[in-house]
Amino acid sequence: MADIASFIRDVPDFPKKGIVFKDITPLLAAPAAMKETVDQMAEAFLDKGVDAVAGVEARGFIFGPLLAERLGVPFIPIRKPGKLPYQKISRTYGLEYGRATIEIHTDAVEKGQKVLMVDDLLATGGTMSAACELVEQLGGEVLACAFVIELCFLPGREKLSKYDVMTLLKVTGE
Amino acid sequence: MADIASFIRDVPDFPKKGIVFKDITPLLAAPAAMKETVDQMAEAFLDKGVDAVAGVEARGFIFGPLLAERLGVPFIPIRKPGKLPYQKISRTYGLEYGRATIEIHTDAVEKGQKVLMVDDLLATGGTMSAACELVEQLGGEVLACAFVIELCFLPGREKLSKYDVMTLLKVTGE
Repeated sequence: MADIASFIRDVPDFPKKGIVFKDITPLLAAPAAMKETVDQMAEAFLDKGVDAVAGVEARGFIFGPLLAERLGVPFIPIRKPGKLPYQKISRTYGLEYGRATIEIHTDAVEKGQKVLMVDDLLATGGTMSAACELVEQLGGEVLACAFVIELCFLPGREKLSKYDVMTLLKVTGE
Repeated sequence: MADIASFIRDVPDFPKKGIVFKDITPLLAAPAAMKETVDQMAEAFLDKGVDAVAGVEARGFIFGPLLAERLGVPFIPIRKPGKLPYQKISRTYGLEYGRATIEIHTDAVEKGQKVLMVDDLLATGGTMSAACELVEQLGGEVLACAFVIELCFLPGREKLSKYDVMTLLKVTGE
């Protein structure tokens, strides 16, 4: 296994002073490491009966379709307001400052489908939690939430305690 | 070849009255058709010496990484303002109403690299044209611009006349 950590760049003071941002662009620039990253995520779910993979705009769109292809299942896009054109439902959730809304097409999930939720980074878990609720509201079952990186010093795993959470790279220092 | 057109849903009056939106979510929900779509795009560039694939947030993030993986090259994300954390350059361009800005990391492209630009839909070509200029500003060469769908009744191809343009599905009626 390539050392994924060596392809994640720490950018200090982004998006604001005191925050160390985990920049995945060096990983995206390394084809072999990217392949191994997605292979590893896929392997964990190969025999789990995944019916679809869902990802939230925008970085969930990078990893979601790669994972969906390996598992041979549909990719479900969850988007920011005003982007999805068809009939949809939405959910608004709290952020550190203010609130955000995400949307899903009502025909994106079939009742009883087992959905694997994917994103690059687990921080507070707020966005992923809202995304899971959207899938459940349509009758889907959240099979698990998979992330490339987990910031273990933030309460993301606690926020998602109802679900199985799988992360490849655990970052413990703040 | 699967009939890609049958996986594109027309949504009338979105985002505003009189516009027929080309919804790709049925394609994303059809693994075999998705695979064939990306295979076809990749085949056209297999022997062309592509050094990297670039895609613009957010739907370019769906097709770009799949294509980059098939070609075994890096994926370069081009993003909306305030999203990329590292040193970057930006370009502002005109839209039908108002203006938009996109950004790229300065270390995303190496001088002389041949970059394949990818997005789902060619409409007016404004965003893609700005994306190409960002790549060129960093010393990269735009090898071609590839799209899943082309709206032939809009002047996108004209806007990109400096570049090779490859589209899989040509929509002629408005």
